[in-house]
Amino acid sequence: MIITIKKNADQQLVDKLFTDLKTKDIEIEYIKGQSFNIFALIGDTSDCDIKQIKANDIVENVTRIVAPFKLSNRLLHPQDTIVDVCGIKIGGNNKIAIIAGPCAVESLESICYLANEVKNCGATMLRGGAYKPRSSPYSFQGMQTDGIIALDEAKKQTNLPVVSEIMSSDKLEEFEKYVDLIQVGARNMQNFELLKSLGKSKKPILLKRGLANTIEEWIMSAEYIMAAGNPNIILCERGIRTFENLTRNTLDLSAIPIIKQLSHLPIIVDPSHATGDYTLVKSMSLAAIAAGCDGL
Amino acid sequence: MIITIKKNADQQLVDKLFTDLKTKDIEIEYIKGQSFNIFALIGDTSDCDIKQIKANDIVENVTRIVAPFKLSNRLLHPQDTIVDVCGIKIGGNNKIAIIAGPCAVESLESICYLANEVKNCGATMLRGGAYKPRSSPYSFQGMQTDGIIALDEAKKQTNLPVVSEIMSSDKLEEFEKYVDLIQVGARNMQNFELLKSLGKSKKPILLKRGLANTIEEWIMSAEYIMAAGNPNIILCERGIRTFENLTRNTLDLSAIPIIKQLSHLPIIVDPSHATGDYTLVKSMSLAAIAAGCDGL
Amino acid sequence: MIITIKKNADQQLVDKLFTDLKTKDIEIEYIKGQSFNIFALIGDTSDCDIKQIKANDIVENVTRIVAPFKLSNRLLHPQDTIVDVCGIKIGGNNKIAIIAGPCAVESLESICYLANEVKNCGATMLRGGAYKPRSSPYSFQGMQTDGIIALDEAKKQTNLPVVSEIMSSDKLEEFEKYVDLIQVGARNMQNFELLKSLGKSKKPILLKRGLANTIEEWIMSAEYIMAAGNPNIILCERGIRTFENLTRNTLDLSAIPIIKQLSHLPIIVDPSHATGDYTLVKSMSLAAIAAGCDGL
Amino acid sequence: MIITIKKNADQQLVDKLFTDLKTKDIEIEYIKGQSFNIFALIGDTSDCDIKQIKANDIVENVTRIVAPFKLSNRLLHPQDTIVDVCGIKIGGNNKIAIIAGPCAVESLESICYLANEVKNCGATMLRGGAYKPRSSPYSFQGMQTDGIIALDEAKKQTNLPVVSEIMSSDKLEEFEKYVDLIQVGARNMQNFELLKSLGKSKKPILLKRGLANTIEEWIMSAEYIMAAGNPNIILCERGIRTFENLTRNTLDLSAIPIIKQLSHLPIIVDPSHATGDYTLVKSMSLAAIAAGCDGL
Repeated sequence: MIITIKKNADQQLVDKLFTDLKTKDIEIEYIKGQSFNIFALIGDTSDCDIKQIKANDIVENVTRIVAPFKLSNRLLHPQDTIVDVCGIKIGGNNKIAIIAGPCAVESLESICYLANEVKNCGATMLRGGAYKPRSSPYSFQGMQTDGIIALDEAKKQTNLPVVSEIMSSDKLEEFEKYVDLIQVGARNMQNFELLKSLGKSKKPILLKRGLANTIEEWIMSAEYIMAAGNPNIILCERGIRTFENLTRNTLDLSAIPIIKQLSHLPIIVDPSHATGDYTLVKSMSLAAIAAGCDGL
Repeated sequence: MIITIKKNADQQLVDKLFTDLKTKDIEIEYIKGQSFNIFALIGDTSDCDIKQIKANDIVENVTRIVAPFKLSNRLLHPQDTIVDVCGIKIGGNNKIAIIAGPCAVESLESICYLANEVKNCGATMLRGGAYKPRSSPYSFQGMQTDGIIALDEAKKQTNLPVVSEIMSSDKLEEFEKYVDLIQVGARNMQNFELLKSLGKSKKPILLKRGLANTIEEWIMSAEYIMAAGNPNIILCERGIRTFENLTRNTLDLSAIPIIKQLSHLPIIVDPSHATGDYTLVKSMSLAAIAAGCDGL
Repeated sequence: MIITIKKNADQQLVDKLFTDLKTKDIEIEYIKGQSFNIFALIGDTSDCDIKQIKANDIVENVTRIVAPFKLSNRLLHPQDTIVDVCGIKIGGNNKIAIIAGPCAVESLESICYLANEVKNCGATMLRGGAYKPRSSPYSFQGMQTDGIIALDEAKKQTNLPVVSEIMSSDKLEEFEKYVDLIQVGARNMQNFELLKSLGKSKKPILLKRGLANTIEEWIMSAEYIMAAGNPNIILCERGIRTFENLTRNTLDLSAIPIIKQLSHLPIIVDPSHATGDYTLVKSMSLAAIAAGCDGL
Repeated sequence: MIITIKKNADQQLVDKLFTDLKTKDIEIEYIKGQSFNIFALIGDTSDCDIKQIKANDIVENVTRIVAPFKLSNRLLHPQDTIVDVCGIKIGGNNKIAIIAGPCAVESLESICYLANEVKNCGATMLRGGAYKPRSSPYSFQGMQTDGIIALDEAKKQTNLPVVSEIMSSDKLEEFEKYVDLIQVGARNMQNFELLKSLGKSKKPILLKRGLANTIEEWIMSAEYIMAAGNPNIILCERGIRTFENLTRNTLDLSAIPIIKQLSHLPIIVDPSHATGDYTLVKSMSLAAIAAGCDGL
C-alpha cells in the first residue's frame, strides 16, 4: 500500500500516522522525497481500512498494490480450486457444468417432471427456488420447506444434485440436510451474517454477484465465507445494473477472465437471469463458454 | 394493468391467459380492437407478477397503471405518516430531525464523549454502528453487543434516542431492548427475511436505499415491513452507484419529491455516506432540506 | 403505439388529442373501455414523439409496439446487410473480419511497420487514428492530415483497406479520398450533424456505440445515416459505462444477438477499447465471436 | 504524478521509462525504496497520458496528484469567474440567473408570446432550441435559421438575452450574430472539434454535462474551449444516466460544490431536462440553489 502524504503536512501529524500504522504485522518504509513524502506499507495490509486512512487530512492519496483478499487470491494459491458437488467437479479443466431448472419449485409433480427433462437434455444438476426473494411481499414467496422436500424427491428420481437459494441462516440446517450446492442470491451477496454462517457449513456455496457490486467486492464476499472456514465456493456472474433496458441486466462476461486472473475459484454464468429473455440465452451461453467459464 | 396481446395470437392461448388471470379479486375487461387486443385488469393487481405475464409468448407488453405497493401508497393513505422516536416526531410538518454520530462505536468513552458533542451541536438523535457491514472480513466488525450497551450508556448521559444498524434477525431481541430506531443498511435493503422479522417489531425502522435499487424497489421493501405489521418506517436516501468517481455515491435528491408523491412515509437523507467527503456535507444537507426531506 | 388515457380525463381534451394525432399516415383506433380509454395508433409512428405525448396531462402512459426505426429494421428488411470494404465483405455468413492497428498513427515508419505486422498476423484491415478525440486539449491530438496520408502509404505497401475516425464533417472530402471505412467514435455517436453529412458519403461507415447509449439510440443513429442516403453501416460495440472499475468499460456482448434480432446491419466488437487491458482481449474476442459478431 | 514501478522490474526498462518521461517541463524524482520504486513527477503533467503510462508493463500504478486541468483550475485561479451575458452577470456573488423558455422554437408567434411570459415571470434570459438534437431522424429537427431569427425578434420585444444550442461549427457565424449565450448540448460535450471552434468565439458558452460524463471530463471539455481562447464558460449540470427510471436522468447536485472546489467557473442547473417531470422542477430548483449554484 502506498500512502502519499500532502505537501506541507504538519510533521507531528505525519509522525502520529506513522506510529498508528506501524503494527507488528506491517512494516512501513517512510520515503521522503523533495516534493512528496510517501509511506510504503509492506506485508499483509488486508485489514487496513483504505477509507479510514484517506479520511486523514494529511493524506493525499492511498493506493493498494496488493489486493485486499488472501484466501481467494490466485497469487497466493495459484492452483485452480475444484469444487466437488456429489461427484460432479467444477473448475480447473473439468467439463462445463450445466445447472438447469425452473426459477421456482411450483409443485412436487412439476419439479419431478422438470428434473427428468433437465436430465434428458444433458444437464448435470437441478436448480429450483424454494425460498424466493421477491421484490413484492404480495408475490409468491416460494413453497419453502415443501419445495426443498420436493427437490429432494426429484433428486431421488433423477440422481441430479440439487441447487437452491438460502435466504437466512436459520434455514441452514434444512439446507445442510437436503441441498447439495447452497446458492447465495444477488440480493444477499453482502448479507455478511449469512456469509459468515455459510462459512461454517460443509456444503459448497454458489455465490452470485450482487446487482451492482464490483468484482472486488464479490471476491471479498467469497473471502468472508472462506475466512469462516468453507473453501468450496463457486462464483456466479448474473449481470449488473446499467441504463440499458432491452436486457434485464447487462451480462459482464469480462468478469470471467478477471476472476481467473485474480482468484483460483471457479466461475459460472447465469445467462437467463442476466438477460431476462430466452432468445438471448443460447448466444450468451456460447459466449460465456468461449470466455472461459466453468459452468452455466 | 394493461396487457397488450400480440397480433395474430392463437385465440385458444388468449382465452387460456384470460382464464388464468381472472380471479375473484381482479376484474378483467377484454378489449378487442381491430389491430390490437388488450386485457385491462381492474382491482388489486399487486400480486400479479409482471415478469411472469410478459414471459407469455402471446403477450406484447404489460403496463402497470397502479403502483404495486398499497400500505405505503400515498394514493390510498393521503396523510403523512409521522414516526415517533421517543417523543421526537419525524415526518409531516415536524422540525427537521438531525441524527448524528460516528460511523462505528469504538469505545464506551468515545461514544459518550461524542454523544455529548452531538447534543451540544443541536442534534436530536445519536447514531453509532455496533454491528458493521464491512466489505472485508478482515476489517473491524464493530463492538457488537458491547457497542449496543455503550450506546445505551451514552443515551443515559444525554437523553438522546439511539439509532443503530441491525444485520440479522437473531439480534432483534437485543435491538428491541436497547435501540430506539433500528436501521436497515443499504446492503440489506432486499434481505427480505430480515424485513419480515422487523415487521413484527414494535420499534420504528430506518430503511436505507440499496446501493443500486430503484425508488420503486425501495418502497416495496418498506411494504414488506408494513405488510408484516410495522407501519413506522423512515426511508433514508444515501446515494446510488454510478460511474462518477469524485463522490463515493451519487446522492439522488430527486428521490425526495418522488417519495413524497408516491408514499406517505417520511424520508431523510444521509449526505455523509452518499458523498464520502466531509467538505460536501454542508451543501448537500442544505439541498436536501430545500428539496423537502424530513431529516438528516 | 398504445396511448392509455387517464380515468376521468376531460372529454374535450381527449377529443383534441385524438384530432392532433390523426394525420393521413396514422390511423387511430379509439378503444373505449369501462375503466380505461385507449388510443391504438396504427401505421408508421416513427415521427410520433413519445415524450411529447406523455407530457400531455390526460395521458397515463404511452407504449410503442413497433420500434421507431425503419430502414435499419430487421422486420422490414429481413436479409442481412453485407457491407463491402474494398472487396472484403462484412456481415451475413462472411468470414469474421479482423481490423487491427495502433490507437494513433505516430509516424509514417511506425504505421507502415505495424501495417505489415497486422497483415502478417492475418488481419484484413488496418485501423489507425489520425484525428484523436482526447479528453484533454493538452494530449497529442493526432497527426491529422499527415496521419491520413501515412495510412494511405501503409495501404499501398500492404493492400489492407484503411479504417480511421472522422471528427468533423469539414474533413469529409479528405476521408472520402483516402479512407475506406469511416469510423464515427463513441463520443460522436449522437453528433447528428456529422451523421447527416456521412449519409451523403459513398463510403461505408463504422458506427461505434456511445459511452452510455442504449441499443435503441445506437440504431437510431444508424437510421440517421441511412435516412440521409448511405445504407452501408457497420455497428461496433465497444463497452458501456458502469460502476465497475477493473475494466475501462463494461463490454455488452448481449448487444450482438439483440442487434441481430432488431436490425439487419452487421455488428463488430472492439475488445481492446472496451476492456482497456490487453490480457482480456483474447477471451473477449472469442466470446464476441461465439455470441455471433461479424468482426473484431 | 506518482508512478509506482513493479517490484523486480527490469532496470533497463525502468531507466528507459525515466528517460522517456524526462522532458524540459517535468522534473522527475526517482525514489528508490526497498520494496517499491517510485517516480514522482513534479511540474505541469497535464499532457502526460495516464493511460499510456499505465500500459507500460513495468508500471504498477499511476496516481495524479494535481488535476489535469489548468485554465479552469481553482487552485491556479482562486477568484470566481463572472460571465457577462448582455449585462447579466453570472457567477461569484451575483443574483441567481433564471433562464427559461420552450424546448424548441415552434413559430415566431409562440416564441414571442412565451418570451413575454418568461419576462413577466421574472426570468432574465430566454432559451429556445432552433437546432434540435433528436434521437430520431424522423422527429422535428427544429426551425433552424428561422428559429434563430424568431428568437432575435423575441429578444427585440422583451430585451431578454437569448440562449440557443449550436450543433455544428458551420453555424457559428449565425450564432455569433444572433445568440447571446451559445449552448453546447450534452450529446456534444465531447465533440472536440466543436469545442475548439467555440474557443475562437467572443460569445460566452453554456457547456452542458454529457449524458454519462464524469465531472473531470466535463471540466476538461471547458478546458478545451479555454485553451482555444474563450474564457467565458458557464457549466450546466443536467443529470446523468443511471438505472433509476422514475426520472429521465439522475440530477447530480453534488457536482455543484465539487465544481466550486475544483474550478472557478460558474455552474447552473437544468432541473427540467434532468428530471423530465414538471412536478419535480420546483423542489429540485430550490435544492440546486441551496447547494450553491449560480443559476437555473
